[in-house]
Amino acid sequence: MVTRVFCQTVLHTVSARPLRSAILRLIPRTALLPWLSSRAVSVSEWPLLSSPPRDYSLPNPSWSTEMRRLYEYYDSLCEKEMEGGEKKPGGWGRLPSYNRTLKYAAGGKCLSKLLKEKARLFTRNTEEQGAAFEYVVFMNKSEKRCVCIFQAGHLLEGPPGNVHGGAIATIIDTSLGTLAGYLSGIVMTANLNINYCSPIPLGSVVLIDSVLDKVEGRKTFVSCQVTSSDGSKLHTEATGLFISINVGHLFGG
Amino acid sequence: MVTRVFCQTVLHTVSARPLRSAILRLIPRTALLPWLSSRAVSVSEWPLLSSPPRDYSLPNPSWSTEMRRLYEYYDSLCEKEMEGGEKKPGGWGRLPSYNRTLKYAAGGKCLSKLLKEKARLFTRNTEEQGAAFEYVVFMNKSEKRCVCIFQAGHLLEGPPGNVHGGAIATIIDTSLGTLAGYLSGIVMTANLNINYCSPIPLGSVVLIDSVLDKVEGRKTFVSCQVTSSDGSKLHTEATGLFISINVGHLFGG
Repeated sequence: MVTRVFCQTVLHTVSARPLRSAILRLIPRTALLPWLSSRAVSVSEWPLLSSPPRDYSLPNPSWSTEMRRLYEYYDSLCEKEMEGGEKKPGGWGRLPSYNRTLKYAAGGKCLSKLLKEKARLFTRNTEEQGAAFEYVVFMNKSEKRCVCIFQAGHLLEGPPGNVHGGAIATIIDTSLGTLAGYLSGIVMTANLNINYCSPIPLGSVVLIDSVLDKVEGRKTFVSCQVTSSDGSKLHTEATGLFISINVGHLFGG
Repeated sequence: MVTRVFCQTVLHTVSARPLRSAILRLIPRTALLPWLSSRAVSVSEWPLLSSPPRDYSLPNPSWSTEMRRLYEYYDSLCEKEMEGGEKKPGGWGRLPSYNRTLKYAAGGKCLSKLLKEKARLFTRNTEEQGAAFEYVVFMNKSEKRCVCIFQAGHLLEGPPGNVHGGAIATIIDTSLGTLAGYLSGIVMTANLNINYCSPIPLGSVVLIDSVLDKVEGRKTFVSCQVTSSDGSKLHTEATGLFISINVGHLFGG
């Protein structure tokens, strides 16, 4: 919490890019990780005194019974703070999810200032609940594994009545990238290799179970399976390679 | 044109699924191809006497100067009908693009009737011009090649100011699938293998140049490169495997 407020203060008050980059290089990357990972935690611009942005990975009325059942199952496995300050142990943690990546990043050379204000994270780019990507990621750090529960809305159609192959690739990129980023710091996708085994019907709920395969220097190798919610049907499987990058690059340093 | 009107008539007036499937099996698949390919030509429901749906691959005010320049270049290479009925030769053809796949398809077991009406093709799911995927595909049948001109809008963000890896995978799936479908009939994606070499800035225009590698029975192997609009920078390269399917499967036959 302290780190987050400090980071907000730094980025909102320091306007000179070289000075901002210098300050950011002093902050341990791991301290910035939950706030900077553009897959798991994408923050909108937070004026210091206003309410926090919407967390898109919390249940909403568009979630089906199956989506809620799975959410409650994984939520029950999470560490929780009990009355009296004790902690109920649990190996899992839910990752919050927002609709913007950092405003001050140096990317987007082609973007006008107006477009930079309007930019939204691809998987969180609509306010219409249930229309596109409804998903939540639970992380298990000790198992080096994460599970994404995903419900595909009506705006994701490919073959009639089924989810577009690109939308499947997108939730796979999100899941694998979230895991790689959580374990290895800020990363970018270098390779995705996706086998589509069985179509995913629009409106259905699937699980994307991602695991770490290995780390070699800056390279993080991960893989996943996309199954029906009861695990009985394999829809898709994929491998991913992610490369760790210098945080300063995000800020034009 | 006659085939298209006939097909519309069949699908709008024949409500009994087994009868509809039987009729459709009588229509040569190649005759249905331009109308059925859910990547190149996705049709909205056309009442027989109303105006045709919007063709999303025609220029609109959100297109940048560079997008228009490339469109006009490839358009000049297309076959055109001149005054007096003569045809100006050209090896290329522009593929129209709509925002719905077939209404009567059997897919989407999880979809309510309401959702089926609301479903939209993933790459054409917003009416806000310039916000998401702006693209047009030009096909060269003799070269077994197609070029997709793609401008990424502000709703496709991944790393700050750059296009999401999933959005890149989506336009690659669209381009490769369009080529495979045009050459081999109705297809579905079996594999995508994507190497991300260099980030694509939001708002920029890129070219996705796709070629046929080989056909083995029902398997169509294609590959593509995603480059800057002047061809000088390689952003992404990918291979794809597409499998031809029975058209009747789309209609519950």
